[in-house]
Amino acid sequence: MIEDKNSARTPLSELGEFGLIDHLTKNFEIKQPTTDVGIGDDAAILDFGDQKCVISTDLLIEGVHFDLSYVPLKHLGYKSVMVNLSDIYAMNATASQITVSIAVSNRFPLEALEELYAGIQTAANLYNVDVIGGDTTSSTSGLIISITALGYAKQEEITYRSGAKNNDLLVVSGDLGAAYMGLQVLEREKQVFNVNPNAQPDLDQYTYLIERQLKPEARKDIPELLKALEVQPTSMIDISDGLSSETIHLCTKSEVGVHLYEEKIPLDPAVISICEEFNLNSTTVALNGGEDYELLFTIKQEDYPKIKANPNLTVIGHMTDKNDGMGLVTRANEKIEIQAQGWNPIKKEG
Amino acid sequence: MIEDKNSARTPLSELGEFGLIDHLTKNFEIKQPTTDVGIGDDAAILDFGDQKCVISTDLLIEGVHFDLSYVPLKHLGYKSVMVNLSDIYAMNATASQITVSIAVSNRFPLEALEELYAGIQTAANLYNVDVIGGDTTSSTSGLIISITALGYAKQEEITYRSGAKNNDLLVVSGDLGAAYMGLQVLEREKQVFNVNPNAQPDLDQYTYLIERQLKPEARKDIPELLKALEVQPTSMIDISDGLSSETIHLCTKSEVGVHLYEEKIPLDPAVISICEEFNLNSTTVALNGGEDYELLFTIKQEDYPKIKANPNLTVIGHMTDKNDGMGLVTRANEKIEIQAQGWNPIKKEG
Repeated sequence: MIEDKNSARTPLSELGEFGLIDHLTKNFEIKQPTTDVGIGDDAAILDFGDQKCVISTDLLIEGVHFDLSYVPLKHLGYKSVMVNLSDIYAMNATASQITVSIAVSNRFPLEALEELYAGIQTAANLYNVDVIGGDTTSSTSGLIISITALGYAKQEEITYRSGAKNNDLLVVSGDLGAAYMGLQVLEREKQVFNVNPNAQPDLDQYTYLIERQLKPEARKDIPELLKALEVQPTSMIDISDGLSSETIHLCTKSEVGVHLYEEKIPLDPAVISICEEFNLNSTTVALNGGEDYELLFTIKQEDYPKIKANPNLTVIGHMTDKNDGMGLVTRANEKIEIQAQGWNPIKKEG
Repeated sequence: MIEDKNSARTPLSELGEFGLIDHLTKNFEIKQPTTDVGIGDDAAILDFGDQKCVISTDLLIEGVHFDLSYVPLKHLGYKSVMVNLSDIYAMNATASQITVSIAVSNRFPLEALEELYAGIQTAANLYNVDVIGGDTTSSTSGLIISITALGYAKQEEITYRSGAKNNDLLVVSGDLGAAYMGLQVLEREKQVFNVNPNAQPDLDQYTYLIERQLKPEARKDIPELLKALEVQPTSMIDISDGLSSETIHLCTKSEVGVHLYEEKIPLDPAVISICEEFNLNSTTVALNGGEDYELLFTIKQEDYPKIKANPNLTVIGHMTDKNDGMGLVTRANEKIEIQAQGWNPIKKEG
């Protein structure tokens, strides 16, 4: 889409570095009470009062983390913010600010960066975070996006990966595997397009999957919900690399084992259906697919009544003694050791 | 130096993403009282108590900001930290934490990244900042370094670009132009090397210039000195793009003019000498060279006695009414309008 011949194309050289930053950030308003000063000086000034400051950072590289042949720049801007805010929510904290640095080669016209920043601004507005700084520079090859997210929480609310105890319940928000299958659909369409550029894809039935891949939503609502339900999670992590990988992180950091029940893993019907189409095992996709940006956390058994009726939350297992290991209990009631696969290719296993 | 055939070369693929982060950051200790939790969870946790949090970020790209054919990776790591801390000091604040994200192509062996991180660690130790997080990812081409620096200051100590008043004195730390001339020397040696790879360069006489380019020091000491002298600067900025560009920023943000005196601009004898060798005007080099990472600030006239004896500080001018414009008063007592040139090529003007 950035090669659209009908669009206006303003070379970045027309603005210069300072002109570019000013142009791209002129509509960013400061709304957060914790932001004293945003863009425009050597640094931004924040005031978290008596709360703790939570900070996380991510680097997104064209050709590694995204493929501009099917990712619209506006969606990419939005998703870049989500990826970072998800880490703040995974601390059970409130996200409040981001800094955004980008490097671009001069194949990008100004209009392309405006699209990217429109996505960033939409995300910042919807998630109630201020864009307080950043850097804009040239790149020798592709597009690079570096975002740092900040937030705050009270000491006693902060949730680490390391707090899970034996017998705690393992809970996940939303459903899993859709973002990965959305990527498979997009990759397939790219192959079709490469063979026949005139093919008109009909992607209607894949809308949910593609949205989960291109425009994921970070779970801002989950820390809010848990607070409203008066549930303090004992450990928490966001699912960026896949359920297996993140479960292993919680177990390792908390020094516990886990029983994770295959039949409990929440799957959208669209995921089940597409897995049949692609001849993939949906459990494997949910375990290893990644990019769901759901929250995986543990709660005390006694908090179960508070969450059991909530459609956003699914109990998928419970923590065990460390010596029991990390096991997936299959539908056939067999126990298989959970292994991290992250982004390795997934093949149907049975 | 990263192509040294005698060095050990461990492919990054041997470690994997998590192994790499753990390996590179295993020696980083938490020392700052404002750091509650560093690397190892979804986010780091900071506590600035009743002080303001100051935050700044920069992105450094191979082929744009640095040339690995003459920049040792250890120096690059060190300089990347300096560039960011300089922004914190320019707020008259104390730097306390950094996050470091890097993207590398697989042409870099593990040993190269260890060199880079050794420089980062040296800088963090010397400047008393904690490395609290970051991201390590692959890149399709060169090396990318994204650093976010955090610090703190009391509300009343924070110094913006916008606080200068008519009649305030304009003061600069250290001396100017050496980093730019160091770059010229290195570029010349690269040309010589390209023509005759066996030439043995004798760079002894250029040591100061090359050090200022390859291993600049951020002026941590200046906010400390000003506090000890009981001087609250009225405005401040760090010199990354050159004296002209930064002076213009102070004037524009503060809505004042300036008289900057050519004869007062502090130059090291090595800069004067190399400018003659390269047939460049040393004033132009000081005004437009950049990368000095000195601090440029304004103080009230009444504070002059407190700073006048200090060898680190030079009064180079005074602020005027906005309508007087921004003028360089030359040695011939002519007034020339100051223009931002930043990194454009510099030609000898007279």
